[in-house]
Amino acid sequence: MSFLEQLKKVKEASLKLMHLKSEVKNDLLKQIAENLDKNRNRIKNENAKDLAEGEKAGLSKALMDRLLLNDKRIDAMINGVMDIVNQDDPVGVVEKGYKRPNGLKIYKVRVPIGVIGIIYESRPNVTVDAAALCLKSGNAAVLRGGKEAVNSNRILGEIIQEAIVNNGLMKETVLVIEDSERKLIYDMLKAKGYIDLIVPRGGEGLIQFVTENSLIPIVKHDKGLCHVYIDKDADIDKAVKIAFNAKVQRPGVCNAMETLLIHKDVAEVVLPKLKDEYEKAGVELRGCELTKSVIDVIPATEDDWKTEYLDLILSIKVVGCIDEAIEHINRYGSSHSEAIVTENYTVAQKFLDEVDAAAVYVNASTRFTDGAEFGLGAEIGISTQKLHCRGPMGAYDLTTTKYIIYGDGHIRK
Amino acid sequence: MSFLEQLKKVKEASLKLMHLKSEVKNDLLKQIAENLDKNRNRIKNENAKDLAEGEKAGLSKALMDRLLLNDKRIDAMINGVMDIVNQDDPVGVVEKGYKRPNGLKIYKVRVPIGVIGIIYESRPNVTVDAAALCLKSGNAAVLRGGKEAVNSNRILGEIIQEAIVNNGLMKETVLVIEDSERKLIYDMLKAKGYIDLIVPRGGEGLIQFVTENSLIPIVKHDKGLCHVYIDKDADIDKAVKIAFNAKVQRPGVCNAMETLLIHKDVAEVVLPKLKDEYEKAGVELRGCELTKSVIDVIPATEDDWKTEYLDLILSIKVVGCIDEAIEHINRYGSSHSEAIVTENYTVAQKFLDEVDAAAVYVNASTRFTDGAEFGLGAEIGISTQKLHCRGPMGAYDLTTTKYIIYGDGHIRK
Repeated sequence: MSFLEQLKKVKEASLKLMHLKSEVKNDLLKQIAENLDKNRNRIKNENAKDLAEGEKAGLSKALMDRLLLNDKRIDAMINGVMDIVNQDDPVGVVEKGYKRPNGLKIYKVRVPIGVIGIIYESRPNVTVDAAALCLKSGNAAVLRGGKEAVNSNRILGEIIQEAIVNNGLMKETVLVIEDSERKLIYDMLKAKGYIDLIVPRGGEGLIQFVTENSLIPIVKHDKGLCHVYIDKDADIDKAVKIAFNAKVQRPGVCNAMETLLIHKDVAEVVLPKLKDEYEKAGVELRGCELTKSVIDVIPATEDDWKTEYLDLILSIKVVGCIDEAIEHINRYGSSHSEAIVTENYTVAQKFLDEVDAAAVYVNASTRFTDGAEFGLGAEIGISTQKLHCRGPMGAYDLTTTKYIIYGDGHIRK
Repeated sequence: MSFLEQLKKVKEASLKLMHLKSEVKNDLLKQIAENLDKNRNRIKNENAKDLAEGEKAGLSKALMDRLLLNDKRIDAMINGVMDIVNQDDPVGVVEKGYKRPNGLKIYKVRVPIGVIGIIYESRPNVTVDAAALCLKSGNAAVLRGGKEAVNSNRILGEIIQEAIVNNGLMKETVLVIEDSERKLIYDMLKAKGYIDLIVPRGGEGLIQFVTENSLIPIVKHDKGLCHVYIDKDADIDKAVKIAFNAKVQRPGVCNAMETLLIHKDVAEVVLPKLKDEYEKAGVELRGCELTKSVIDVIPATEDDWKTEYLDLILSIKVVGCIDEAIEHINRYGSSHSEAIVTENYTVAQKFLDEVDAAAVYVNASTRFTDGAEFGLGAEIGISTQKLHCRGPMGAYDLTTTKYIIYGDGHIRK
């Protein structure tokens, strides 16, 4: 079957999936969890092939670790699916309803989007997470994982499809595809009418390729260039704790801080304390001229303000006022997560109002931007765009709306 | 100033606009309405130039009519702006708010998108509608109208900017651009980081050009291939009235019916009645084999099921059951507006559940899909895509969300 013929089947499957009851979808998800549990050896055997290939290809330790599926990680996948079972079904929720003066009853109801294409790299557990979130929200899925994980993704796809077929649905409800280079990604991006939404998760190269080639709407999961601003009225203890946490707790993720902004009036008190803490944790510090006049750091360049290090590196800038901090953030930030530390009510409200980002914090670490931390359930990623959804993207965001109108012979005058 | 430098100014203007109070935005809109009233002669003089050019270029009567701005149409523009003043401000609405177990208070709040680029054809009144809706929702706007209306659009842009500057805002808050061919459209589509959303309104050629070239998210206002299905349990009077209204009341718009589906058990009763009515109204009928066995019509081809006539032409298909009707609609429809006429409760619910469209009706004409008819206020168009918004697109849909999080020194464990 050609890829386009397969996509036609996926579209057909999506129409059957759209109006399934929550109970039926949850039973299917439970069976996927059971199948994963029963097939641990099949999974580990196939994963071993990917690991062996990765070893041969000389993949880095970090990449090899991402590839690995052991019992602990299979447990995590199973628990992930069961968490999704226990979430509310977003489909069928009535967003609003009213009666018009002419008697028409209008309801705006959440419905599945249709077919979701997800493009991701390396980690094979995404195959299970993404399939489960799509099924929960009544969508069919086309999953294109990284080529390093091709054997692992194939077996996970088979296990998911076995449960799907067992529940009387078309096996193309979840289609895991195998791609070398970007041939099938390209075909996906042109498959208007078959795929309704593309979610790319990965590095800048992938995101750019998808943005430039897609004829289908996309929700991007791009970079996070996040700031913490320590105001002159900050509680110093909170400031040090938050600035340390935002950089060090998990530096390789998109909601970690990359640039620290600090008001000139507290720079001399806060920076030496932070320097001690950061140095113990092995953080490299790069600072502006004013920072350098307080602590000994590497000089920061214009490029540093634009860089998402994803590493134990931090750029520091001393600012003269809240406006300068907000301007810097709106100019260099990636509109992901931004925090202020202050005890000043008016300054806090100003920051919340004027910073343009998916998540804006007062006196908390940027690290909380996450579906589970926000109480939204599992996430398929964090949207860095403003259209459709912004911030953690869960099952709710894999739905759209439909107007349902009850009339009684109404015609337009 | 280069176009990119102008766009930088628009972006700067949008940041100032984001957190304006509703009162301030409404005062500005009222002043725009007053300025339009005071400058009727300036508008009509500039419009006369476009009309003269149009005459020379041999524009069709319909196009010339769309171009015309007389006092009645200036009144309509003024009333449109005042209607938008009286609508609720979508900015600042809290969609949900809750406290997490760790004490973090999280609010999901509606905020402006930023800079909206709107690309439209011929009718100059769109310049005023679009600017007013963008301002109401706190967005800056880049407006690219049709080249036939260049003088009218320029003067309307000046009148809007005079009010903007008078209110202490940057004149680039609304930028009306003049474009020959599609040079500036192309530049708009590549202006990632300056424009946040592109709304194309126009023919298939324009929509395709925008879809293929845009690096910026778009909300499309594409075609409407709408159906009415008359079920075997339909009330015959309602069926005839609705099928007539959906085709004839205003055939040139996207929510008009293009194909009538009818259950075989009622075809012999309904079709002759409808044929009489349609013929009086000058509607050309094209039908399937079964239709032809009941009434005398031109044979319909496969192409007819795919065609948005926007004219007094109707294709008719007799179907054997509700499933066949739903399948036809999901296959050939453009997911815009679809209606069933039936007194059967279960069949009605099945149609509502299984038809995949922005608006699905029971016993009402498809012609109601419209911002004002739905009670949503003025619309910038009708979205035919599933992402971000679906159906009539008003001020609410020109906003996105932002998470606001209040902590007390919270760090991630």
